[in-house]
Amino acid sequence: MFEVIGERINTSRKKVQAAVAERDADYIVDDVKQQLAAGADYIDVNAGARIGHETEDMQWLIDTIQPIATVPLCLDSPDPAVLEMAFQMVEAEPMINSISLETDRLGAMLPFLEGKACKVIALCMDDAGMPASSDDIIGRAVKLVEELNRVGIKTESIYIDPLVQPISTDSNKGVMVLDAVRGIKKNFPEVHITGGLSNISYGLPQRRIINRTFVGLMMDAGMDSAIIDPLDQAIMATIKTADMLLGHDNFCGGYLKGVRSGAIKS
Amino acid sequence: MFEVIGERINTSRKKVQAAVAERDADYIVDDVKQQLAAGADYIDVNAGARIGHETEDMQWLIDTIQPIATVPLCLDSPDPAVLEMAFQMVEAEPMINSISLETDRLGAMLPFLEGKACKVIALCMDDAGMPASSDDIIGRAVKLVEELNRVGIKTESIYIDPLVQPISTDSNKGVMVLDAVRGIKKNFPEVHITGGLSNISYGLPQRRIINRTFVGLMMDAGMDSAIIDPLDQAIMATIKTADMLLGHDNFCGGYLKGVRSGAIKS
Repeated sequence: MFEVIGERINTSRKKVQAAVAERDADYIVDDVKQQLAAGADYIDVNAGARIGHETEDMQWLIDTIQPIATVPLCLDSPDPAVLEMAFQMVEAEPMINSISLETDRLGAMLPFLEGKACKVIALCMDDAGMPASSDDIIGRAVKLVEELNRVGIKTESIYIDPLVQPISTDSNKGVMVLDAVRGIKKNFPEVHITGGLSNISYGLPQRRIINRTFVGLMMDAGMDSAIIDPLDQAIMATIKTADMLLGHDNFCGGYLKGVRSGAIKS
Repeated sequence: MFEVIGERINTSRKKVQAAVAERDADYIVDDVKQQLAAGADYIDVNAGARIGHETEDMQWLIDTIQPIATVPLCLDSPDPAVLEMAFQMVEAEPMINSISLETDRLGAMLPFLEGKACKVIALCMDDAGMPASSDDIIGRAVKLVEELNRVGIKTESIYIDPLVQPISTDSNKGVMVLDAVRGIKKNFPEVHITGGLSNISYGLPQRRIINRTFVGLMMDAGMDSAIIDPLDQAIMATIKTADMLLGHDNFCGGYLKGVRSGAIKS
């Protein structure tokens, strides 16, 4: 089944930042409960936006969220020290967001990850920037899996983010990432594919129809996870519907439950 | 680019049947003009519902439609005599709807098609009924291509209909047809894939989200044509969007035109 990483608890969102600054636990708890009710499989926690406060903000967020979280947390920081502190706090095996092939990030993250029991989001980004072709994405994914395997992270715990790029800049950007996902899954059938989706429609009008059509195509190619807002009902309904069409929903049970709850509407 | 076969001129539709019975040319012309404005690439013409009147009804419909049709007609009948008459009337190279592997139909249609310049819709139906697996669909498609090639129909003029079946009867029916489309395109890259889509959602609630999600997946698998109602704006908008995402729309020109005209809305 598709896994949804709920992206809302991020201090780059103004209301979340205000709630964190004021230590408004009710706001955070309510937001997380809504994400869980909407079907989040992980709750991403990012406390990076208040410069100089990341450690204490992350600590407070985990303290606030963990008692009501019925799913694991996705610890979202580029700082191994913050991640180490957060990792010691969490009870359920977390997801780490994220590693990449950028020299500094790779060098900082590999020692932190070594021997740890966790899932890892691995971005196909390197020192040259965004990938330029399907083969480039696949090549970076292969390197990421090799580096992570070497420090003891199993392939089935790796969530590759192929980095969706705007189709408005190049009509081929959709096919590029779809082909890359197929290529990565061919190399590593057990690896997961995740990422944000809305970049695809950046710069174009009527973005929602592009985003929801695209998620179906990405799932068909092999994407089995996404970092999204679980309260975006249109995307969530399309994910449940595509999961059914792709044979992951016995007797259409999940789809029918979604219709009954009002989560899936035409 | 995706080809839309507009299905509305069919005497099994009550209003069309009434218009045909009353020789109400204005009604038919208006309907066809709407289909053309919505982007139909073929206009299907089926006069089969008024028993005993098919020949004269088909003749009248072609006489009525041809002067305003800016696209070819899709002549839709199981009767070679009706098709022969219709074929002689049309100016642009028509599509013939349809042949199948059912003994009677195959035996009647092959002599009619022999040496003709036309496109052909070929249904993956045989004397055993609907196909039971991906391999079954692929095997039937191979036979259809072989039979049609033998009477001079080129592979690129063949539109295979893999026969979409309801997912409510078996959770695997989506994957079955998607895999079959991939298999057919692997065998014959130049063959077209067409068919109706709405059968997939038969028996389930909120059918529109299923249909529009499914068309994207089918296009990703290789479907490049469908027999649909071009006035169904949601399906048409999804087709244009998926065409863009799959790299068939340079500079997103078709998508942007669709947004400007109001045809594509989130």
